[in-house]
Amino acid sequence: MSEGKPRAVGLLGGGVIGGGWAARFILNGVNVRLYGPSSRSVERVQKMIANARRAYRRLTLLPLPSEGSLTVVESVADAARGVELVQESAPDRLGLKQQLLAAASRAAAPETLICSSTSGLRPSLLQAEMDHPERLLVAHPFNPVYLLPLVELCAGHRTAPETLDRATAIFRAVGMHPLLVRNEVDGFIANRLQEAVWREALWLVQDNLATVQEIDDAVRYSIGLRRAVMGPIQTYRLAVPVSSARRSMEQFRPGKIPWTKLTEVPEFTDAFIDKLAEQSDAQAANLTIPELEQKRDDCLVAVLQGLRAQGYGAGETLARWEKGLRDRAPQRTNGSDPLRMPMREIPCDWIDYNGHVSESRYLELFGNATGILLRYIGIDGEYLSKSGSYQAVETHLSRLRGLCAGDRVEVLTQVLGADDKCLRLFHTLTRERDDQPAATGEQMLVHVDAQSRRIGPAQANVRERVLELARMHAELPRPERAGASIELR
Amino acid sequence: MSEGKPRAVGLLGGGVIGGGWAARFILNGVNVRLYGPSSRSVERVQKMIANARRAYRRLTLLPLPSEGSLTVVESVADAARGVELVQESAPDRLGLKQQLLAAASRAAAPETLICSSTSGLRPSLLQAEMDHPERLLVAHPFNPVYLLPLVELCAGHRTAPETLDRATAIFRAVGMHPLLVRNEVDGFIANRLQEAVWREALWLVQDNLATVQEIDDAVRYSIGLRRAVMGPIQTYRLAVPVSSARRSMEQFRPGKIPWTKLTEVPEFTDAFIDKLAEQSDAQAANLTIPELEQKRDDCLVAVLQGLRAQGYGAGETLARWEKGLRDRAPQRTNGSDPLRMPMREIPCDWIDYNGHVSESRYLELFGNATGILLRYIGIDGEYLSKSGSYQAVETHLSRLRGLCAGDRVEVLTQVLGADDKCLRLFHTLTRERDDQPAATGEQMLVHVDAQSRRIGPAQANVRERVLELARMHAELPRPERAGASIELR
Repeated sequence: MSEGKPRAVGLLGGGVIGGGWAARFILNGVNVRLYGPSSRSVERVQKMIANARRAYRRLTLLPLPSEGSLTVVESVADAARGVELVQESAPDRLGLKQQLLAAASRAAAPETLICSSTSGLRPSLLQAEMDHPERLLVAHPFNPVYLLPLVELCAGHRTAPETLDRATAIFRAVGMHPLLVRNEVDGFIANRLQEAVWREALWLVQDNLATVQEIDDAVRYSIGLRRAVMGPIQTYRLAVPVSSARRSMEQFRPGKIPWTKLTEVPEFTDAFIDKLAEQSDAQAANLTIPELEQKRDDCLVAVLQGLRAQGYGAGETLARWEKGLRDRAPQRTNGSDPLRMPMREIPCDWIDYNGHVSESRYLELFGNATGILLRYIGIDGEYLSKSGSYQAVETHLSRLRGLCAGDRVEVLTQVLGADDKCLRLFHTLTRERDDQPAATGEQMLVHVDAQSRRIGPAQANVRERVLELARMHAELPRPERAGASIELR
Repeated sequence: MSEGKPRAVGLLGGGVIGGGWAARFILNGVNVRLYGPSSRSVERVQKMIANARRAYRRLTLLPLPSEGSLTVVESVADAARGVELVQESAPDRLGLKQQLLAAASRAAAPETLICSSTSGLRPSLLQAEMDHPERLLVAHPFNPVYLLPLVELCAGHRTAPETLDRATAIFRAVGMHPLLVRNEVDGFIANRLQEAVWREALWLVQDNLATVQEIDDAVRYSIGLRRAVMGPIQTYRLAVPVSSARRSMEQFRPGKIPWTKLTEVPEFTDAFIDKLAEQSDAQAANLTIPELEQKRDDCLVAVLQGLRAQGYGAGETLARWEKGLRDRAPQRTNGSDPLRMPMREIPCDWIDYNGHVSESRYLELFGNATGILLRYIGIDGEYLSKSGSYQAVETHLSRLRGLCAGDRVEVLTQVLGADDKCLRLFHTLTRERDDQPAATGEQMLVHVDAQSRRIGPAQANVRERVLELARMHAELPRPERAGASIELR
């Protein structure tokens, strides 16, 4: 892909879209020449680059290329010279864009690609005044440009076919997903759908049927979660999950009482239903409906878990539900036994490309077992906020035999030792019906005070339970691998 | 929340929605009495419960309550007796629903809550024929019901206010996000928006402007990713991120050339723009626009990473971009030095509620350093698929001092020993300007053959590089904590 990556690009316009392009290119190691109308917009672009830098640090652990440079230039011609791509992101006024694109086309070398970020103006109109209009293309991105992968590519009447290929290579090289819009239409594809939603949302507000917040919440706790995974049509396909796409699509004949203020709708003729069904089958490619349903579910789980880590939207709902589960979890021990984490099955998406469960999953299982033990010794919500908790400072994981998807495993946790600040645990993960452990995890935890955030003794009630548990567990056999260190075998 | 959870519910209808309700209730420990018309539908419900079980195992590591029972009953009356809630999910035909709800209302105790899953019929019409219509409510969920949290609650003219409170408690207790639809309108909120999208999508297909797949891809690689995080209105608010909501909303006056076939639209009067702006400000609550932008970015990163793990949609685009980064990553070592992972900053969302970086992040950083070393010794894509790779079987993590958000850290990796199958590494994580390590990670890796998936010697070229690196690193000072075991301090 490196071949497609330009050395330098010229950007016209430094608003939310122009700034987003600057951020994406610079973080991908491409030099940017920016022509923006005001010094305030340069400041905003710097801010967006900082936001993008912050986001990319989370997005990947891999080293990013050295950042490209940002050069603010004083004219369109200065931005367009000596670059492989000029990307215009001015406000969506036809006259203004035509003028900018024409100026850029006169200054740029004839082989320089020229793209417009227009949200909906047709490329044939945009290229009208240009020199060498064959290298003009619409390349419509989405805010934030540095994170969302889609770029809609649309050619005008006078665009040369190789222009599309070159643009596709460039946008792929900076991490995007180019989608060819094969026909010129105002708004291309995504913005036509967005505008329909926008109009209906406006009616709901206008008619006092819902507030802005109610509308947004109705989306992000439901259909919005699906949209990150599947588009609107495949979503309907799975709502009537029969094997015939035709029978499924027939069910969605728009009703006589429309559930929208927007009433224009194509007639559901047999030929039209067939067309929908054929395209839907082609889209599903070689996945059956049950396979698609499982893929959808796995992706939804991944999205929900991502949002849970952010404590946001539907992730907050999930966290609240888990809090309920935790509060209601039964305590299954009688003192002198090791604490037992209930039997659970290894899901197939825990298996990596090597056929193994990744280390972090073991850490998760043992961390969960530690959580159960901490609750058992009295660390509840109140203790956490007032007095603190235990934190692992050392962990020794050993994988002794491979686990397969579907294996049922349980974790036993034994206290190996404790004093008023430290707690040493030994977790043993065993497959159902095996007598040898499949993995072990030894952990040293220290008590960290909630206020000072420093190591300090546990409160009396917790300390007593810890020491009592340690006394009782001292009578259990000592695990063979306790205290082991790593040696070359 | 446990208070809200019913002991048993009666479900009318065993299609995609009824089956989804059965799965959600049963996995949350609620007994289900199901009245479904056919034995085929019972089979489908069993299948959905199995899918939900699979999904919940990924969703949480916490122990789920003991599953509720599924009892298939032969009549509406049988489903409605002795339960706290009757949930009707028959096809969306008014007459059919009225009849089922009336029958349920005659059989159920007067205090039994009765809800309809209708996608869009008004509750005042549904309660027309019922005994005790004051306990009827629309509770409209979304497919898959066992995963998506939203349930739209809508009362009819004759619904009692406490009915809403009781329903809210029940749906919350099984992990849902109830949203009160304050006014009766066909399609409630989410489905009005969905139907508008559906109509526009149908026009795009009808007019040959785009295929089903192109439409779905245009959504899931762009606006769909935002929808999981924010609704359509706040998305527009951030597209013009000025501090005045009024100035932002003004920009979205629907155009004279509509980018949709659906042309009805409210007039953008001053009063209407003010209303939008006030509601938008209320929604943002105490977050500024830059704060909202960062929250949006963090959530988008989380969603993209979730999809990356699934290798699906926008996650596939991210994985392809990372492959490019990996292929282009410079090798920064000259043989006898430890391998150096480039300096990086600790992002603030790596910090947990205790103010600490979680253990799995250390594992990620050290795993990444191992990945860089493996590439250095010649394990590339071809080697991976043909010959195999190294896998960590033992890891000893030690956290020696706390890390804060913004700390810049680097990882040095030293080979402590190797033979033809094993590789022992020692990672040292140091903060910029510190001379003592902040954390260490010792790892034993074994070479696993790609075909047999068993431990076996590395191929000659890799083996030679490993042994050479081990010879050179043998001259480096031995890290103080190498070979350490866990001891009670």
